[in-house]
Amino acid sequence: MPTVLPAGSVGLVSPKIAQFTAPLALSSGRTLTDYQLIYETYGTLNADGSNAVLICHALSGHHHAAGYHSMDERKPGWWDSCIGPGKAIDTRRFFVVSLNNLGGCNGSTGPRSIDPDSGQPYGARFPIVTVEDWVNSQARLADRLGIRQWAAIIGGSLGGMQALHWSLAYPERVRHCVAIATAPRLSAQNIAFNEVARQAILSDPDYPEGIPKKGLMLARMVGHITYLSDDAMGEKFGRDMKSDTLNYDFSSAQFQVESYLRYQGEEFSGRFDANTYLLMTKALDYFELGELAPARARFFLMSFTTDWRFSPARSREIVDALVDAGKEVSYVEIDAPQGHDAFLLPIPRYLQAFSAYMNRIEV
Amino acid sequence: MPTVLPAGSVGLVSPKIAQFTAPLALSSGRTLTDYQLIYETYGTLNADGSNAVLICHALSGHHHAAGYHSMDERKPGWWDSCIGPGKAIDTRRFFVVSLNNLGGCNGSTGPRSIDPDSGQPYGARFPIVTVEDWVNSQARLADRLGIRQWAAIIGGSLGGMQALHWSLAYPERVRHCVAIATAPRLSAQNIAFNEVARQAILSDPDYPEGIPKKGLMLARMVGHITYLSDDAMGEKFGRDMKSDTLNYDFSSAQFQVESYLRYQGEEFSGRFDANTYLLMTKALDYFELGELAPARARFFLMSFTTDWRFSPARSREIVDALVDAGKEVSYVEIDAPQGHDAFLLPIPRYLQAFSAYMNRIEV
Repeated sequence: MPTVLPAGSVGLVSPKIAQFTAPLALSSGRTLTDYQLIYETYGTLNADGSNAVLICHALSGHHHAAGYHSMDERKPGWWDSCIGPGKAIDTRRFFVVSLNNLGGCNGSTGPRSIDPDSGQPYGARFPIVTVEDWVNSQARLADRLGIRQWAAIIGGSLGGMQALHWSLAYPERVRHCVAIATAPRLSAQNIAFNEVARQAILSDPDYPEGIPKKGLMLARMVGHITYLSDDAMGEKFGRDMKSDTLNYDFSSAQFQVESYLRYQGEEFSGRFDANTYLLMTKALDYFELGELAPARARFFLMSFTTDWRFSPARSREIVDALVDAGKEVSYVEIDAPQGHDAFLLPIPRYLQAFSAYMNRIEV
Repeated sequence: MPTVLPAGSVGLVSPKIAQFTAPLALSSGRTLTDYQLIYETYGTLNADGSNAVLICHALSGHHHAAGYHSMDERKPGWWDSCIGPGKAIDTRRFFVVSLNNLGGCNGSTGPRSIDPDSGQPYGARFPIVTVEDWVNSQARLADRLGIRQWAAIIGGSLGGMQALHWSLAYPERVRHCVAIATAPRLSAQNIAFNEVARQAILSDPDYPEGIPKKGLMLARMVGHITYLSDDAMGEKFGRDMKSDTLNYDFSSAQFQVESYLRYQGEEFSGRFDANTYLLMTKALDYFELGELAPARARFFLMSFTTDWRFSPARSREIVDALVDAGKEVSYVEIDAPQGHDAFLLPIPRYLQAFSAYMNRIEV
């Protein structure tokens, strides 16, 4: 909890709600008749509306990307290291919009919302949403905010897929596309890990009518392992034990890494929605980078050497395809031991490369 | 099912049972008062008993390593590609012994056996067993079979750990130690995946009193992903779909890789014991390669380039430690796309290197 706000913070922020009553047709063929998006903004939209930046979140992300909701908040928004005055996404220059996606569990319409058809929460009946659906809903939010064209759309991981899709679906509305630690489509291994996570939730006896806490915990444990590099885990935990002796039982955690994973899984399952988790993994599985010809944005991609979930090779596939399609593209591979999680961390060379690119964007 | 036995097969084989009534003190402090080991033998023990080879199995392995139990058996033993006349472990020269470890579910005393103290199956009350315990029980089996010294002890993965431990615990009884695709101890990531597998079983409502099929299925799915390389999975499944259209639901398998994993998980959970799975993962977690000074064996290690469960770097750690301890050691790194599973597969260069080493062993 900050007693004074740290330098470089956007400060105290409050989420806003945008209500939409025009039906949204989804990729699945289903329709959301009305819905809301929760979002935050940092910085000020300039007179000609040319300095707006959209942040797209990843699997477990949300609209609270920077600053604090109150002086009691223990930690700032999830991308506070990159968003703020003087930071890579400099709020002295940019007007930053960050939302919670449809299907989320942090305030946008999702499984916990009331289905107007039944008067009950959607729960497992919430429609499957795709990256395309999110981008369409984000375009409506842009309309609502009077943003005709984004200076940049930025995202990491699943967020990067949204940024990429924006540049193809609404080419006139994106000047710069920044896609970090992402992939043009999932690998078989990526899908396999998602499927294990889904099966953990689906096979929990508390699914779909109760709260499948154990299933969500398992799903998160599997996911968490894939966010960290083997080296980072080794560095952090090695074979350190909780006690000096072997306990010869299954229920107590013997090694620090077990204890850490259980804590991460339990903490997550207490705050996240299992149906949202299912939806997010499916959006990942279904994403395929489309035809690049329409794109008019400049592209900036970054990846991290030890990321084995979306390795540098996956980013290079995108870079190569963009080059082949005659697009303007810059690419930086960051030497970082932290694995996929690196995109959320204040790694100096990463922040430096990110800032350098962002500072060259004209507003 | 073979209508005639293939050339190079050890042919029809039958398991044998060895009963032990002397109590076996376990690492945990508990004792097995009596127990049995199921094993198979291939080839003939020579007059001076100098040609015996012990095969140690990995997590889900068992005693049936080669040949067929009947002409109706669909597939031969799990290491048939390496054991038989003219194969790497040539049964014209060697007398091969292959057992199911204590705690197993294929005929040796384990969770499905009757606990003499209660008259009920051990189930979750079976004691935790370690690599050390297995090696001690294997030494008693050697005594029973009149094998004073093994020409070679051979294993892959968890089996390699047993082979290594033999060379330290019974240095006079091992002439050659062949350890394939193994590690001196688990990494934090290895332990983390094991912990997810255990939590999947432990959190299944059918554990411990019923049969936690869903939990074991999940455990196997996670394990299976780690046995295959990212490339092998990509090559085999890519993003191939089960149908031409997206189905927009969670219950049906959309991609071939999902379907494959579910099948593997279900098939495994129908034949394997969840308590055995728990025990095997714990034996892996607890293993640490001991002090190398006592070893008198010659060592041969092999690893596979795309194995990310026990990568070549882990084998090189062992090789380096052996070299530092002044031991005789040979090491071959096999270029193979199949990941950890490679040690079970008939990869020409692997079989060639394996044969070359085995053929130099004097019997």
